Amino acid sequence: MVELWRGGLKESVHAGHAVICDEQGTIVESWGNPDEVIFTRSSCKMIQALPLVESGAADAAKLTEAHVAFACASHHGSALHVGLARSWLEGLGMSEKDLRCGSHEPSDKIERNRLIRADEAPCQLHNNCSGKHSGMLTMNQFLKGDAEYVEVDHPLQVRIKAAFEEVTEEVSPGWGIDGCSAPNFATSLHGLARAMGRFAGASGTGDARDRAMHRLTRAMAAYPELIAGDTGACTELMRAMDGRVAIKGGAEAVYVAIIPELKRGIALKIVDGGYRASEAVVTALLVRLGVLAADHFYAKKRLNVVQKNWRGKETGLLQLAPGFLG
Amino acid sequence: MVELWRGGLKESVHAGHAVICDEQGTIVESWGNPDEVIFTRSSCKMIQALPLVESGAADAAKLTEAHVAFACASHHGSALHVGLARSWLEGLGMSEKDLRCGSHEPSDKIERNRLIRADEAPCQLHNNCSGKHSGMLTMNQFLKGDAEYVEVDHPLQVRIKAAFEEVTEEVSPGWGIDGCSAPNFATSLHGLARAMGRFAGASGTGDARDRAMHRLTRAMAAYPELIAGDTGACTELMRAMDGRVAIKGGAEAVYVAIIPELKRGIALKIVDGGYRASEAVVTALLVRLGVLAADHFYAKKRLNVVQKNWRGKETGLLQLAPGFLG
Repeated sequence: MVELWRGGLKESVHAGHAVICDEQGTIVESWGNPDEVIFTRSSCKMIQALPLVESGAADAAKLTEAHVAFACASHHGSALHVGLARSWLEGLGMSEKDLRCGSHEPSDKIERNRLIRADEAPCQLHNNCSGKHSGMLTMNQFLKGDAEYVEVDHPLQVRIKAAFEEVTEEVSPGWGIDGCSAPNFATSLHGLARAMGRFAGASGTGDARDRAMHRLTRAMAAYPELIAGDTGACTELMRAMDGRVAIKGGAEAVYVAIIPELKRGIALKIVDGGYRASEAVVTALLVRLGVLAADHFYAKKRLNVVQKNWRGKETGLLQLAPGFLG
Repeated sequence: MVELWRGGLKESVHAGHAVICDEQGTIVESWGNPDEVIFTRSSCKMIQALPLVESGAADAAKLTEAHVAFACASHHGSALHVGLARSWLEGLGMSEKDLRCGSHEPSDKIERNRLIRADEAPCQLHNNCSGKHSGMLTMNQFLKGDAEYVEVDHPLQVRIKAAFEEVTEEVSPGWGIDGCSAPNFATSLHGLARAMGRFAGASGTGDARDRAMHRLTRAMAAYPELIAGDTGACTELMRAMDGRVAIKGGAEAVYVAIIPELKRGIALKIVDGGYRASEAVVTALLVRLGVLAADHFYAKKRLNVVQKNWRGKETGLLQLAPGFLG
């Protein structure tokens, strides 16, 4: 699907699978194998947040749309993100200690450098999944579940798995542990695209599931800066689409998109886990569907990725393979 | 060649090509396509250093074996590396300003954090190629060439290209600009393995080329901490082989090995540029050839890479594909 060129020669290549579904979950277009079983990783955070919203737990905790968006984030651990996670947990009468996501150095460089200068270790609020986990803690409080909410047989995760299987319309063939310790359920790429098609088709006037899907999609699209962070592909591409489309990447190069105006959902996976390729492919498909302008700065940035070296010289170009999308 | 598994399911895969040559350059064993044209990137630094050593320029500048090894490094920009580059240039009557490699944040975290705390920008000495460039400046001084030594038609690069084509025994089909601004010449994977076989077969008692190959191989193997840095694959795997084998990685997942005791050279490339896979494959081939103990901590670390999450839980396993190496 994607090639890296240098000096007029092909240097590296990325293969992948991609599926576009309508709001019924029917495949409209596909590349590679739609039946490929994948781990959705962070690309399914809006599915993991369904029980939180549709149960009424989000409203009971007086969550704003920003919180709902943040529950779907793989954020950069900036001061904005850490502050939102901290105040959210305080509102629940909880703290960073209640999280079970672990800590890692934030990818936001300003916050990273602040920590280093202050000789402070990163905390669990910095974890890119702390928004998702704040959402899980909110739902868990609503369920009156015990503290170990990331165990696969915990009532919260049982609810999430049920929602996951309902929207993918597949019995999940297995599960793994994600980077943030939460269970991650496997599905086919078609299953994930089917779920995204259903999100895209949600009217916001139907049952609790329909309204939750509608609300999650709008919240994500409205708060791009909460979903990833400055320079993040999700944030930049959603900004380029002016709040009309929700997209989300996941580890090992999974990407999804929810396009309400077309009632289309996209799911894709690069087989080698290369992010540069998944970002290029989701960009190309959004352009192909007419919801992202091909000449937008953020589209060009990821569609034809000019490789520059440490002196700013152009050295290579990452671009779509000629056979992919014609 | 390599697969990532999670929760009992295959999550990602890496394909590649690999060639093992004897000291005549004949293929002993290969996987994938030996004729695949590749950019060698940093894996060819010992070839780029050949003119420096065989011309007498290294001896004229009184370079030690540590300097010779450092000319082949993709180092981590630690205090050790920066100090060696600085003193080397001072010995030439030059300074950091004479380098043309550009600057980037060092991967050594102690030095990175020191820079951040001191509010200092990284300089060209931190560039992972500053050793190679110090070697190029040494040779350039010997040649009395002009300051722009990374231009492809500069006499230094013309010498390097000639050496490259002689040891690969191929006319290079093209060139690109490397991350450090130096030209990088393309060759087939067989060409690169052929060159490594010749390095492995060098006796140290023949002509200037033979002696230079012998000296470069021994210098690399003797100074693993200068070739990459603590936690680097080259450094750790060479330490595990007690100075008997020289190995070197390159950008976009190229790896080479020079094994004097067997008179064998290895070259490999992962098609998608994934480093975790190139490190696993070179480890596997070194174990297969009997020069690296399969149960050595550093071999196990890269051969079966346990994926742990931010709470230290085991979540996945990177391992050789069942079909590769049987």
